[in-house]
Amino acid sequence: MPASAAPDPQSPRHPVLIGLDWGTTSLRAYLFDAYGTELQRLQASQGILAVPEGRFREAFEGLCAPWLAADPSLPVIASGMIGSRQGWREAPYAHAPAGFEEIASRLSRLDDAAGRVFRLVPGVQASTQMGATDVMRGEETQVFGALAARSLLLPADAAHRDGLFVLPGTHSKWVEVRDHRIVALRTYLTGETFAVLRNHSILGRLCADPAADDAEAQLHARAAYDIGVQQGHAQPGALLHLLFMVRTEGLFERFSASQLPAYLSGLLIGAEIADAWAWCGDELQPALVGSTELASRYARALHTLGLPASIASEECTAEGLFAIAVHAGLVPNYLKMV
Amino acid sequence: MPASAAPDPQSPRHPVLIGLDWGTTSLRAYLFDAYGTELQRLQASQGILAVPEGRFREAFEGLCAPWLAADPSLPVIASGMIGSRQGWREAPYAHAPAGFEEIASRLSRLDDAAGRVFRLVPGVQASTQMGATDVMRGEETQVFGALAARSLLLPADAAHRDGLFVLPGTHSKWVEVRDHRIVALRTYLTGETFAVLRNHSILGRLCADPAADDAEAQLHARAAYDIGVQQGHAQPGALLHLLFMVRTEGLFERFSASQLPAYLSGLLIGAEIADAWAWCGDELQPALVGSTELASRYARALHTLGLPASIASEECTAEGLFAIAVHAGLVPNYLKMV
Repeated sequence: MPASAAPDPQSPRHPVLIGLDWGTTSLRAYLFDAYGTELQRLQASQGILAVPEGRFREAFEGLCAPWLAADPSLPVIASGMIGSRQGWREAPYAHAPAGFEEIASRLSRLDDAAGRVFRLVPGVQASTQMGATDVMRGEETQVFGALAARSLLLPADAAHRDGLFVLPGTHSKWVEVRDHRIVALRTYLTGETFAVLRNHSILGRLCADPAADDAEAQLHARAAYDIGVQQGHAQPGALLHLLFMVRTEGLFERFSASQLPAYLSGLLIGAEIADAWAWCGDELQPALVGSTELASRYARALHTLGLPASIASEECTAEGLFAIAVHAGLVPNYLKMV
Repeated sequence: MPASAAPDPQSPRHPVLIGLDWGTTSLRAYLFDAYGTELQRLQASQGILAVPEGRFREAFEGLCAPWLAADPSLPVIASGMIGSRQGWREAPYAHAPAGFEEIASRLSRLDDAAGRVFRLVPGVQASTQMGATDVMRGEETQVFGALAARSLLLPADAAHRDGLFVLPGTHSKWVEVRDHRIVALRTYLTGETFAVLRNHSILGRLCADPAADDAEAQLHARAAYDIGVQQGHAQPGALLHLLFMVRTEGLFERFSASQLPAYLSGLLIGAEIADAWAWCGDELQPALVGSTELASRYARALHTLGLPASIASEECTAEGLFAIAVHAGLVPNYLKMV
């Protein structure tokens, strides 16, 4: 074959898609070949709050310049807060139940004058039992990533088309999936409540983080965490009372300063799990999706409570972006993922 | 009677005692005659956190200078955070059950070189059902004030020697009294949780306070408050989830920005009431003690929920300081209050 011939897009390691995980505080970019292999990854601290005056295009082109220089027409798919009202353009929420087809057919178009295909993944909204609305934006891509990854590993029978995914974080999400579609979700303000109490309340004044190299202090912090988890789980309705116990347990020196942040975290996560478990019932075993540290913390809580759980994956956003792009026809469908 | 004769301490309007309500953010001073009549009141923003380098004596003598100039030997009784570890001197907690006699016999002495009698009221601690410890410091004086005021108004039969007092605030307290003794208490971090979420979380970004002169906006805020109270009360164990609804109800414009702070407040107070009601049972009717605005807010919540309640008094600290001083023999016992 002559050297001047166009490269075959089907060949492994040939870039066919850019995926963007663009959240509030960071921007991650993935370069994929036609088989979903991640060829390269770039990262910048240019979350949507850090991009001045809506200069999102400049931020994207700046980070991905090496890839775009090689091929300016690479299609792009982005998920996360970039599609929120505060982002580049609002990508309206898809309504649950929402599966690959619903999401892929509702991508928002942001194609530029140069003809580059640019798509935003919509978030998902679902009605709550109380008639309110719960939402997610970015986490739906992680869930689809986990589903896609699972489809590669497990037999495609009906049992593996359902699932309960737990995405711990600032706003922790519990997501129920039936037949590969997101049917319900429930968000908890757990991480953010911890952060504001830790950093801005009287509880924080008593708290100190254990030194990273102090194994004994880390051990004691985990013991306090376990107690917090059990108490929060036993009395989730008493949470506002239990939070004051962080103060008194410190005041009476039952917990040291370096145990108190873990105790506080345990109370909140224990209360979250108690409510979420009641919400989702016993039928589905939760699979944790998220960073290793946070997923481990939730896994420890569930284990302490005697509840079954598994860790799905540390990072599913890349897999999710690729899988949605395949369903949307942004890349040649050589490998039907799901 | 010759003009040079010493004034009769028993005469009305003759000062016999200074009472100090000395908290974290403010210092209030009361001047009493022998009948507990408040002759004068002074106030400064010199809460214990605002007094530099432990110069509490200077702060006290500065505020009360006019009274001390007339009579440097006036006895002083103080309650609140001034008796905490961060205050002038720690006044160790009295253990529940604690009545007037237990408190009066455990006042901490802080008498100065000039021979002035200066006493600190101890806080009260009680074991929780979980084996932890709950505490109050300052609120016990309000409870004793409410009990003393009630004794003047109501027949002194057994029924009026019991009570359930609710002291809303940064750290809201529910206090069970039997036979004029504090037997149990339960603290909720309600006010502080509201403040940190309102001021430091993503929820606060959606919030705006209704203009004080906008009657319609105030009305709408109260309606949102009522809904929050009902939801928080119905699902106290789902509080961390309900908090996220403040965001989505704002996002989908079901509540306006000026309704959201009230909705958030309602969720928290509703969850507090649900748990406190389960804790204290149905036997005692709660009496609210506190500032008119905050007590009204709790009274509205209890009314919305169909729960009985009364407002005990706007301000009971002065009455409490005087009643404890009488029991401790700091003033002649002309009028046995309780």
